[in-house]
Amino acid sequence: MNQARAERVLANLRKIGLGQAIVSDPMSIWYLTGYYTEPYERFFALYLGERDGKLVDVMFCNRLFPDATGAASKIVTFDDTDDPLPLLAQAIDSTQPLGVDKNLAARWLVPLMDMGAAKAVALASPAVDGARSIKDAAEQELMRAASNINDQAMAWLAEQVHVGVTEESIASRLLGEYRSLGAEDHSFTPIVSFGANAADPHHGPDGTILAPGQMVLFDVGCKRQAYCSDMTRTFFTAAPTAHQLEVYDTVRRANEAAEAKIRPGVEFAELDLTARKVIEDAGYGKYFTHRLGHQIGLTDHEPGDVSSTHHEPVQPGMCFSIEPGIYIPGDIGVRIEDLAIVTEDGAEILNHFTHEPTVLTAD
Amino acid sequence: MNQARAERVLANLRKIGLGQAIVSDPMSIWYLTGYYTEPYERFFALYLGERDGKLVDVMFCNRLFPDATGAASKIVTFDDTDDPLPLLAQAIDSTQPLGVDKNLAARWLVPLMDMGAAKAVALASPAVDGARSIKDAAEQELMRAASNINDQAMAWLAEQVHVGVTEESIASRLLGEYRSLGAEDHSFTPIVSFGANAADPHHGPDGTILAPGQMVLFDVGCKRQAYCSDMTRTFFTAAPTAHQLEVYDTVRRANEAAEAKIRPGVEFAELDLTARKVIEDAGYGKYFTHRLGHQIGLTDHEPGDVSSTHHEPVQPGMCFSIEPGIYIPGDIGVRIEDLAIVTEDGAEILNHFTHEPTVLTAD
Repeated sequence: MNQARAERVLANLRKIGLGQAIVSDPMSIWYLTGYYTEPYERFFALYLGERDGKLVDVMFCNRLFPDATGAASKIVTFDDTDDPLPLLAQAIDSTQPLGVDKNLAARWLVPLMDMGAAKAVALASPAVDGARSIKDAAEQELMRAASNINDQAMAWLAEQVHVGVTEESIASRLLGEYRSLGAEDHSFTPIVSFGANAADPHHGPDGTILAPGQMVLFDVGCKRQAYCSDMTRTFFTAAPTAHQLEVYDTVRRANEAAEAKIRPGVEFAELDLTARKVIEDAGYGKYFTHRLGHQIGLTDHEPGDVSSTHHEPVQPGMCFSIEPGIYIPGDIGVRIEDLAIVTEDGAEILNHFTHEPTVLTAD
Repeated sequence: MNQARAERVLANLRKIGLGQAIVSDPMSIWYLTGYYTEPYERFFALYLGERDGKLVDVMFCNRLFPDATGAASKIVTFDDTDDPLPLLAQAIDSTQPLGVDKNLAARWLVPLMDMGAAKAVALASPAVDGARSIKDAAEQELMRAASNINDQAMAWLAEQVHVGVTEESIASRLLGEYRSLGAEDHSFTPIVSFGANAADPHHGPDGTILAPGQMVLFDVGCKRQAYCSDMTRTFFTAAPTAHQLEVYDTVRRANEAAEAKIRPGVEFAELDLTARKVIEDAGYGKYFTHRLGHQIGLTDHEPGDVSSTHHEPVQPGMCFSIEPGIYIPGDIGVRIEDLAIVTEDGAEILNHFTHEPTVLTAD
């Protein structure tokens, strides 16, 4: 059990009027205990509470899971033929409300309420997600390492660009490169888009063959020791036209204006609007069709996005993407994305791969 | 909306004291409406209820989903910036209890209860799963077709067995074969096990190279028009030893004894015990380490297993696997699995690939 993280969750719970919660998201349990398992349809939860000012932590594991000894102060185990909920109910203070994860399934929540296990039930995810949102020093180092691999992978990707290659053939070889660089997996399905395919921000790699002079967009990320990276770069394969260069330069200026604005206290919405204004002022506003970014950590997309409707202030230790784009259907798609960690007085940009317009030799 | 299926769900709901429910499992919504989408974290639900003895069906879709026009009597759409729950609450009779799917997430269920949308909440999955469990004529035809492809795929797999090939190389080529036979996907990750690897019933295909004389186990399935197949066969690559043949023959007799026992009214547990007794009588009881089978349809494993603790009677139209096995660590693993549909007076076995001990020429 990581005491500091558990205490932060408890402090966040108190702010929303809760003194106890069950955490059931396996990644959140890993974050708090260092123990990971994928329970599928089986019950898996960590109870967090307080008695006499001291942390109470109890983990509930099916005996089919890997041994969890040491992961929490108390481990309660059960078989497939046992009902785990009465065991859980023993840990809960039934006179008080209980926080639950946003993903807890009705198959557990409804019987738990029916047995009167708690006075009431409330969503506790903001407390857990809020703690996960602020990366501590060890996590920041892991985020740096994952993005460092991603920078190297982007250089490798640029070398794979040749006339005649398909999107799918590059995408399918990326995992091998990530692994040779020390990552364990993709953090999301990679996006490799040639030419006008890039005008669809979620185009999946297919059999499209690179034609001479087409632009190439890579949006890729890896996981290293469970932490995610995520970066986008858009390349030229011939001297850019004035139009292409104007679009590229607009996206780049939007990216850099937003990144320059990051500091504790600035609202997420203000970052989005900063990038959006650069693109609107250049006359491309209607072609920037998505939010500016998302938080990231143990999963690629974490709660609390960088969007015009999110008015909370950013805080030191938060990590998120800045990824403006311009998508003109049938014509061009450009996106430039970095990850940033908020520091005490600004931001550390985790990606160091150049923003300069880059023409690849793709013969 | 498939009226007959919706009426069957309503009838099942009445049996558990419910007059209305929201269905949120995308596969169950597809089963009832023919409309499929994967909503990820977005809200997607089908309300089913009754007013004046007539079915009321309303579907709730984010506007980012594919157009659902015609899938239900009424389609309510919303944006990412809308809260869909007040829209849903308008459809619910708040003076009555509401059934919910076992997988409905707390992020929807807790606010729904907080807003007093229903008098109480109860798990409605048995009503929906119970309807899905009984395959109608159209579904039985789809189950037959998927298993027919699986029979052909098993013949192809047998041809891939050559000394020097790896488990992974056969497994990785199976999807292409399935597609050329008209299936769209695997129904689960295929199992290809050489020699003693087969003694682990869940061994994943790896770089193990086939050695001369080793036995080979294939447990594979495909999806065709959304319906799943699932079959296991175990082959010899040299004349079997007396021990190998005894194990094989015991598993085969267990399979065939259980299959012969299937008819409406027999308990699932009795099928399991029939197969188990054959294996126990042969002295291998402790090496049959799992339940006899599972129901199957739109997903590979559906609720209501064929096990010693499931005492409900089988009913016409149910479809499940019969898959006894003997697993002696470090020595041998044999499993023979077919799918069966319960008929009015017995069972139709969907797999026609032989049970005879088969020696492949693996040079």
